[in-house]
Order: sequence, then C-alpha cells, then structure tokens
Amino acid sequence: MAVYTEVPDGDLTAFLDLYDVGHVVACKGIAEGVENTNYLLQTTSGNFILTLYEKRVAREDLPFFLGLMEHLAAKGLSCPTPIKARDGQALHELCGRPAVIVSFLNGVWPRRPTEKHCQQLGTALADFHLKGRDFQIKRTNNLSIAGWHKLVEATKARADEVSPGLAAAIVDELAALDAAWPTKLEIGVIHADLFPDNVFFLEDRLSGLIDFYFACTDFLAYDLAVCINAWCFEQNGSFNVTKARLLVRSYNAVRPIPAAEMQALPILCRGSALRFLLTRLYDWLNHPAGAFVKPKDPLEYLRKLRFHQQASSVAAYGVD
Amino acid sequence: MAVYTEVPDGDLTAFLDLYDVGHVVACKGIAEGVENTNYLLQTTSGNFILTLYEKRVAREDLPFFLGLMEHLAAKGLSCPTPIKARDGQALHELCGRPAVIVSFLNGVWPRRPTEKHCQQLGTALADFHLKGRDFQIKRTNNLSIAGWHKLVEATKARADEVSPGLAAAIVDELAALDAAWPTKLEIGVIHADLFPDNVFFLEDRLSGLIDFYFACTDFLAYDLAVCINAWCFEQNGSFNVTKARLLVRSYNAVRPIPAAEMQALPILCRGSALRFLLTRLYDWLNHPAGAFVKPKDPLEYLRKLRFHQQASSVAAYGVD
Repeated sequence: MAVYTEVPDGDLTAFLDLYDVGHVVACKGIAEGVENTNYLLQTTSGNFILTLYEKRVAREDLPFFLGLMEHLAAKGLSCPTPIKARDGQALHELCGRPAVIVSFLNGVWPRRPTEKHCQQLGTALADFHLKGRDFQIKRTNNLSIAGWHKLVEATKARADEVSPGLAAAIVDELAALDAAWPTKLEIGVIHADLFPDNVFFLEDRLSGLIDFYFACTDFLAYDLAVCINAWCFEQNGSFNVTKARLLVRSYNAVRPIPAAEMQALPILCRGSALRFLLTRLYDWLNHPAGAFVKPKDPLEYLRKLRFHQQASSVAAYGVD
Repeated sequence: MAVYTEVPDGDLTAFLDLYDVGHVVACKGIAEGVENTNYLLQTTSGNFILTLYEKRVAREDLPFFLGLMEHLAAKGLSCPTPIKARDGQALHELCGRPAVIVSFLNGVWPRRPTEKHCQQLGTALADFHLKGRDFQIKRTNNLSIAGWHKLVEATKARADEVSPGLAAAIVDELAALDAAWPTKLEIGVIHADLFPDNVFFLEDRLSGLIDFYFACTDFLAYDLAVCINAWCFEQNGSFNVTKARLLVRSYNAVRPIPAAEMQALPILCRGSALRFLLTRLYDWLNHPAGAFVKPKDPLEYLRKLRFHQQASSVAAYGVD
C-alpha cells in the first residue's frame, strides 16, 4: 500500500516512448501491492498498470513472473499481460528499477468474500493450475519448509514479545510439519498468494486474477490450502465450513483432486497458516518506525493454525 | 498517501445506485491525498474520483469546499466537479463517512517543476483568484496567524529535539510576523496549498487544479507566497529566481498585482514558510509509530524561511 518510487514526468514520457501505447493522459500511484510501486496509467490508447519492481523482488525471478503472465493470458486466463515494447521486450528500466507495463484488468476485489465468491474462486484456481501445467520455467517456493526454518530462526527469540508462548508454538509446529509434510503430491505452478485482494469480480462474477509475484513451483494442493486460510475464515475468527466446501468442490469439478491431496489438506493448511504467521511475525518485529506499510496481525494466523491443528481429517473442511 | 477506509463492494454498489454514473468497472485506492481516502472509480460511464472524508476534514466545511468546486467549474476553471446524485445532492454517506464523487481530471503532476510549469502556474493562480471573486461562502484560514500561535504553543517545548535552536526560531519569527503582518490587502478565496501535486499538466500544458481542502478566505497574495515556496526552490535548497519571476509576472498579466501586495510579498513568503514549517513540525513530533503517512521534513521550510528573512525587498524574487 505504497508508492516507493515517484516517477518524474519527463522520465515517464521517455519510458512510454519505448512502447506503442499512446500518450499519457493520467498516471496515479495506487495503494495496492506491498512489494512494488504500481501506477494506474491512462493513455490515449487505454488503461494500463505501470509496475516498478522494488528491491524485494529479485531481478532473476522476473522472467518467471512475466513469462507466466504471458503464458496464462495466451491460454485465455484473465490476468494482466505484459505489454511488449517496440524492441519486442516487455521489461525495461525506469528510475533505476526494472519496470513493465501490463494490461489493465477490470474488476473490484471483494472486501467481504461471500459463498458465491468462494465457489468461483475454486473454479478459477483449478483453471489456473491446468493452464499452468505446461509452463516450462521453474521457481522454488522460498516460503515453504526451508524458508520457514529461516523465519523461525529469525523470529523465535523475540516472538514472545508479540504473544507469550508464541516462540514455542512456532518451533513445535515446524517440527510437526517437518515430520508430516507430504512429498508425493502433484507439483506445478501455484499462485501462492491468492488472497481476496488478488481476485477481481465484476457484479459478483470473477473477472480475473492478479499479482503473480509469489508464484512458484510447488504442490498444487498447497494453493488450495492458502485459499482456505485466506477466504474461509470469518472476521470473528470462526471457520465457515460452507465456504470451504464450495471452494473445494468447485475446484474438484475442474481438476479432480486425487485422494492423496485430499488427505493432505489439513497438513497443507497448517503449513500455509504457519507461512503467513511467520512472514507477518517477521514484518511485525522488523518494520521500521514510520514505515509506509502497516504490518498485518500475525496472531490472526496463529488462530487459524490452531483450527487446522484440531482438524482430525478433511471432514473438518466440509468435504469427504 | 493512504487508503484509510476500505469500501466493501456491496456498500460501493449501493452508494453508486444513488447516482446516475453507470456500473462499476474498477475502483482502486490511490496513493494521493493525505487527508482523505481517494479511489479512482471507473464505471461504464467513465472515470471519476470517489472521496471519503476522514476525520481531519470538518463536516461543516464541506459545503464551502464542494460549493467552491462547483462555482469554479461553472466559470470554466478546469477542476474536479462534484457529481450530483439523483436527489440533487452531491454529498452522501459511505462507510460512515461523508463521501462524494467528483469528475476526473486528466493530467500528471510535475515531479520536477520547470520554468515552463511555473509560468503556467502563475496564469492559472490568477485565473482562479478572479473566478473565485464572487463566490459567496467564507471560510476562515485556520492556518494563518492565530493558527500559528496555537502550533507554536503545541510544538515549542519539543522543537529543539528536531533541531537545536528551532524553538527560539519559531517563537522569534512569530513575534516578527505579529508585528509586520499586513492587514489591508485584497481578500478572497485562496487555494492555500497549491503544491506541484495539486497542479496537473498534459504534455507541459497546465490541465487543471485539484484538492481544494485547504481553500479559505484570505489575502490573495498569500497564495502567491505559498506557490513561491512550493515551486521556486530547487531540491538542493537554492532559490530559483527565474522561476519566481516567471510565476509572479504571468500572475500579474492576468490579475495586476497592486503595489501594496508586491511590497508585502517577502513578509507573506515568511508567513507561508512558517505555516508549513509549523504543520510539518507538529506532524513530525506527533505522528504515531507505524503510521501510514511518512512525515515531511520540517527543516526544509526552516531553510526557506531563512531565505525570505534575508530578502530586503521584492527584488529578491526577481521582480520590481
């Protein structure tokens, strides 16, 4: 929720001259995307998003992210598509940062996800997984087990400042996941961050997916676990089993979920809950005073983790 | 630079139903406007800005601000115009806050103001003053002398934490301004905050003015002093006398500046510099840890104040 880089108008004009996108009509920094600077760019040809990659995004990952968006769009998935400059390349430099222009996706993200939203999310997630199957570039999920170990090491000494007992809770959970984490599920491209603010709807119909900057190669079913955590808990912390059932069933109707994935769902949900607990905890402990971005509450994900820990089987998610 | 209020999609749809502006196509929080929450709203009818007034804007001032924009737009000044709902009223409520939809103004604000920008600014400022002359509603400038007294009282005890000697500097300057502040200059509607981010250009041609939420009734020439401070200093702190000359001369060509106003310019510049020094100092000392908005450097305005203090006459601004 920030504009990290102010783009001087002269630099913007020179950058746009590289592309065949018309002349600038308006360009406003948008308060979305925690990792990058995003402008809503309006030109005489239409609307675009101008993204400047800030230092949290590794340059060597950009071919994966941009290639993925191109691949998915070519297969008909509704998502932003990088616009190629006159030289055939999408990626150029602006204000000393790698920068791209991507197509604009209509829609609004749901601030209060409903059952209807969850049902369509399942369909779209499965469609995304199928369309990503033949994408050739690989990217390790830095925020899976190995990454959690680093984050536990970096946070455990001060975790109890946030909540007494939190250090022990994350150490114990990581040990349990080390022992129980699956190894033989189908691997492919996952979004890995498909929260409501990355899914757009137009009058209650899903219009597209955005923000592929956590996408990586990992268990497809892990993506479903991320969505269960991000979409199926109410603001009061209660788990909405109806939303989970609709999400999983609509996913299953497009990509039938193998039995091994279904059985692994509770442990994948625990892993996904720990992942967001740890990154939020790290940001909470390390955000600079006066930072642009207000850190999110790590304890929301501790409560979600507790729910999954007591789920004895996938029946807890309304499916069988 | 913040979205203080997230608008749930259902609430947005219900709000838009009050207006005849079509259906929502996209709605993105924009990272502009420190006081209010602003969304760039795209509908089937076009582009708009949706503004929710947060608590720093007093509700009783809204008829002045909205009436002023309507008045100016009716006179042909290029600025956002409040859109009236089906009931004839522009102002309604959204998420418990007063909210309006205003027309969208094309253009980009200049991150690096040039002489050409300053020249056009002078013309536009004078045009604004002339078009505001018959606007009937009055609003006291809360950030003139009386307001500065309150701010000095609220900051002087801790001012030296920011810079040694700052407390004495603001107390002394306020005493000097109390003694020398003019009383007989022409009064009218002023913008009072016409910084570069409130002036839009399209390919180097001024396309309009925005953000009238500090507008008030005060000396017209004080607005010119605000612009001199905001536009005519370089990033290294040096004063660009060419920019000042172009600004004042182009203003004068549209609204001839009376001799009394011209003579008062150095003292008005000192007052304007103190105003921004004090509000920035207050925000610097009082911004909460982890706030959305990064406070601006108060000392930038101490350096500007020092420049004006040594200006023995209006000749220092390149005019006579």
